[in-house]
Amino acid sequence: MVEDNADTTSSSAGKKSREGCPDQPQPYPSSRQPEEWEMEKSAQGPPGQPGGSRLVGSSCPQKNAEILSSQYGINLFLAGLLLMFAWAVHAVGISKQELLSYLITIMLIQLLWMLWYIFRSYTQRTLIQEKDTHAGARWLKCGITLFAVITLILDSFKIGYFIGFSNCLSATEGIFPVTHAVHTLLQVYFLWCHAKDIIQSFKTLERFGVIHSVFTNLLLWTNGVLTESKHLLNEHKERLITLGFGNITIDLDDHAPQCNCTTTLCSIFSQGMYYLYPFNIEYHILASTMLYVLWKNIGRKVEHHHQYKIPFKFHGITVGTIFGLIVLISTIAIVVVYLIQIGRSKIKSELALTMFYLYAISVLTLMCAAGIVALLIYRLEERSMDNSKNPARKLDADLLIGTASGSWLLSWGSILATICAQAHPKYTWYNLPYSILVIIEKYIQNLFIIESIHREQEKMNDDIKTLRIVTVSSQSTLSFTPSYKEIYNGAADMDNGKFPYMFNENIYMRERSGGDGFDEVRSQASSPVRHSTSDFSLYSRNSVNNKRRILKNIAAFLFLCNLSLWIPPAFGCRPEYDNGLEEIVFGFEPWIIVVNLAMPFSIFYRMHSAASLFEVYCKT
Amino acid sequence: MVEDNADTTSSSAGKKSREGCPDQPQPYPSSRQPEEWEMEKSAQGPPGQPGGSRLVGSSCPQKNAEILSSQYGINLFLAGLLLMFAWAVHAVGISKQELLSYLITIMLIQLLWMLWYIFRSYTQRTLIQEKDTHAGARWLKCGITLFAVITLILDSFKIGYFIGFSNCLSATEGIFPVTHAVHTLLQVYFLWCHAKDIIQSFKTLERFGVIHSVFTNLLLWTNGVLTESKHLLNEHKERLITLGFGNITIDLDDHAPQCNCTTTLCSIFSQGMYYLYPFNIEYHILASTMLYVLWKNIGRKVEHHHQYKIPFKFHGITVGTIFGLIVLISTIAIVVVYLIQIGRSKIKSELALTMFYLYAISVLTLMCAAGIVALLIYRLEERSMDNSKNPARKLDADLLIGTASGSWLLSWGSILATICAQAHPKYTWYNLPYSILVIIEKYIQNLFIIESIHREQEKMNDDIKTLRIVTVSSQSTLSFTPSYKEIYNGAADMDNGKFPYMFNENIYMRERSGGDGFDEVRSQASSPVRHSTSDFSLYSRNSVNNKRRILKNIAAFLFLCNLSLWIPPAFGCRPEYDNGLEEIVFGFEPWIIVVNLAMPFSIFYRMHSAASLFEVYCKT
Repeated sequence: MVEDNADTTSSSAGKKSREGCPDQPQPYPSSRQPEEWEMEKSAQGPPGQPGGSRLVGSSCPQKNAEILSSQYGINLFLAGLLLMFAWAVHAVGISKQELLSYLITIMLIQLLWMLWYIFRSYTQRTLIQEKDTHAGARWLKCGITLFAVITLILDSFKIGYFIGFSNCLSATEGIFPVTHAVHTLLQVYFLWCHAKDIIQSFKTLERFGVIHSVFTNLLLWTNGVLTESKHLLNEHKERLITLGFGNITIDLDDHAPQCNCTTTLCSIFSQGMYYLYPFNIEYHILASTMLYVLWKNIGRKVEHHHQYKIPFKFHGITVGTIFGLIVLISTIAIVVVYLIQIGRSKIKSELALTMFYLYAISVLTLMCAAGIVALLIYRLEERSMDNSKNPARKLDADLLIGTASGSWLLSWGSILATICAQAHPKYTWYNLPYSILVIIEKYIQNLFIIESIHREQEKMNDDIKTLRIVTVSSQSTLSFTPSYKEIYNGAADMDNGKFPYMFNENIYMRERSGGDGFDEVRSQASSPVRHSTSDFSLYSRNSVNNKRRILKNIAAFLFLCNLSLWIPPAFGCRPEYDNGLEEIVFGFEPWIIVVNLAMPFSIFYRMHSAASLFEVYCKT
Repeated sequence: MVEDNADTTSSSAGKKSREGCPDQPQPYPSSRQPEEWEMEKSAQGPPGQPGGSRLVGSSCPQKNAEILSSQYGINLFLAGLLLMFAWAVHAVGISKQELLSYLITIMLIQLLWMLWYIFRSYTQRTLIQEKDTHAGARWLKCGITLFAVITLILDSFKIGYFIGFSNCLSATEGIFPVTHAVHTLLQVYFLWCHAKDIIQSFKTLERFGVIHSVFTNLLLWTNGVLTESKHLLNEHKERLITLGFGNITIDLDDHAPQCNCTTTLCSIFSQGMYYLYPFNIEYHILASTMLYVLWKNIGRKVEHHHQYKIPFKFHGITVGTIFGLIVLISTIAIVVVYLIQIGRSKIKSELALTMFYLYAISVLTLMCAAGIVALLIYRLEERSMDNSKNPARKLDADLLIGTASGSWLLSWGSILATICAQAHPKYTWYNLPYSILVIIEKYIQNLFIIESIHREQEKMNDDIKTLRIVTVSSQSTLSFTPSYKEIYNGAADMDNGKFPYMFNENIYMRERSGGDGFDEVRSQASSPVRHSTSDFSLYSRNSVNNKRRILKNIAAFLFLCNLSLWIPPAFGCRPEYDNGLEEIVFGFEPWIIVVNLAMPFSIFYRMHSAASLFEVYCKT
């Protein structure tokens, strides 16, 4: 029931965020009837289209706009992708300049569109808009803001680097970070104020704008990933040279400027940039997913009875948090040691790899165990699934499985390589359990997260129904006990087992929302009911609370573990490169291609599952 | 209204297909009420679960089974994919034998599962099952059977080839085609009888079985694509050697056996195989999509008021068919000439390329024009969209856009190459309009197909409503004319404009389905109404019929064009290889990788859009 009375507990935070966006239209007023609302909506539809037809089914132009815009977006993306590919393979006649020009152009188009959208919604703020309460959760916005701030630092580094080398760098390399910084600032503002919007008018133009934004961010993500991969590949090749691997054809792919730096900070900038890239990459993919949800929501009709707000409360999760924090700190330590040791000498590299594998195996085992416990608890208390339409949730589930596939691909590669390799140095054997555990852990974790976000929220209606019957029963005290038991056995155990506890909350809610004949209940449903059922429900309530506490701890632990496991691959601790086994079996080039294609998804998986687990934690 | 009385027109064909499958349970009987049905269904639910809860929302274990099985399927696929990749890049310790063993194993598992499923549905045939009428359309089944027959020929060729070279080939190369032939036979039988099933019991085991089948077929598809790509790449390299390109490092990737053939037919078998592969490839991807729809349908609840059967009627589409056949025949001629000329000499190659480009440009222009005309007609007659849940249709739309992306990627590559290339032989300039037209044509065609399959079928309810009012009006003849006009102007023009024409059909339908108070209408709604409105509605009816005839012709034309355009890439007429421009700009290896990854999707797009256009034709 945490969600139902969230309006009271988190209203201050909600108000604050609303104050930040003066131009944001008011959400659907709860006191009005949906029918009234529907009529107003249809009255303000586009002129060419009769308002009534919208109620029957969406019209052709809308579906058309959806297909038109998605195909436009895909082509925008593919063209950019090929430019990047051409740059990456050193195609004749395509340099970084062309690629950056393309990116600058599409960012400017998005800027113009966002300005138009913000201006329009400011001028028409009297026009009441619907909101998707599931989209653009507050913690997601906070996360994106954090990443955006780091992205701005990255942009300033790039500008500094450009100033230092301005003699031999093309102007686009200076224009790009400036445009990107402006783009980042406006986009974060846009996402804060409009991520929940359900756009109903001017659908075609808005669809094009949103899908353009989605794919612009995806391209910027790809660009970040590519730059990062090139850098890491260069580092890897340098290590191989240090270790004396002469049999692999190594040519460094370094786009270092051809002149000297005019300031003293250039090396700091160029070194620092690569520690900031992982955040920039996450920023763009998160922005992309939020914008995609906005796109999916265009023209949608929302069911208004699902207006829960989920607050974040930190209590009763000490165990999970402590274990999670231990994992987080030790991961950072392990990564630092790994990056210092790897590539120094053969023995140091092997020690670093062994250390990493053993550590990862133990963490993954713990995570598997936690996931299995959570799933077992879910099996103990069956609850029906909420299958209502929810683009944000569907995207979450698809992304979890889709991005996990990237890391599964790598793991299967490692498994195959370990089985087929002809020589097996000792440390390579750790690769096998590690890879298997990566597969199993993601398998279990996805099950847990997807089931969690699909479980139905404890239902208002059931409580009210129970309340009514109990109230009637309490008036004729003789018949109370059997009827109560009947309800208790018949319905889902959890919700009803708790109801005496939530009694006053329910009444309070009803009263606030205008009440439809329940006001008189308040005076009647008083102490006798509470007393006579308290000892009966106490056991059940405790059991439920215990279960919930365990689930909350598990979610917190897994959240911190996923954040931890995001760090190693994002900051260059990639045993898939350094292990050497896969490179020998598959060949250097083929394996590098596989890793560079699959790794970005694997990294995003960790960040995305952390975000989802945060939601699970709040919902539990 | 073709769809509504389809039961009478196509009943013989429907009966025939049902007779072919004696074990097939009867579909939902139309005379029974949905409530009655719902109750029976819940009564036969799994024992652990109360029947009533299914009506509220699907339970957790079902969602769990979905995620469990999809993750299992993805891992099965990824493991196989990496085996193939390893084989393709000549990984150490992984030969074709391992790959074939894996494929044989998963085929055998699928065989066992299918046998179990068929046996179970045979023994429990009294258990009435629901059917998804949208899934497994008859023409799809016929198509798959045709491809399966050719696949069986391919298998026999492979067996013959194995017998010829049995001295030096591993046993797996003989076992594979035998298993594959058995697998093909049983799978086609399975798809004929069970593609429409909506599985409601034993959900977990069946989910695993179906998803296993989906990914087995996908892996067999990938295997076919890989073999085909290797073969075409070898042919391309041979051509390059003939043309004297010494600057590209060419090593033929030929897995020819190391001994002599013991029979005389080996060369025929090995040559013939490559002409049959394209059909094998289509067979597997089609089977995979049908099985995927079966998987999506597990545990679904169907709305029973959408039971249309779409018959195929060949009349009034002479123009479209003739133009389409001309395109088909000339495409075959062009491909034959192309394959004979290409690689003979530099001049002959350039002539062949010019010929192909000019031909493709003209065909694509015609297709674009046809698509635009169709879309304009749709804009003239607005109809609302049918957004009901329909996994088969959703998959169709997603596949159209997804697979088109493959060919868009290639086209963007060609565009980029043409723009950036330093030297431009004359024939390469044709590449630019060709690539642009490929993008535009697929853009328009997707719009047309997706809008067509989403347009709502002409509605029963509106007709009945109109009928009721007209009947009332005809009783009081004075007020007839104004009220009729009112209906005509207020409602969607098409459906109502036609109603006098459909009068008797409506009554017939109502009568058949039990009737709810409309029986008395029949005697009243008689000739006077018909006569007084006939001249008024005649114009409108003609206009509608004309529009429909144009749409039908366009669908038939596009259907044949797509079939035609499937032929060139499937049978080795790939200007993306022979053009040479892209290879110079991107480099040989990178461009070959892009083509080999994108081409299979591009080829499947043509077959899939042909299938969709056939459906559009039948629906129009």
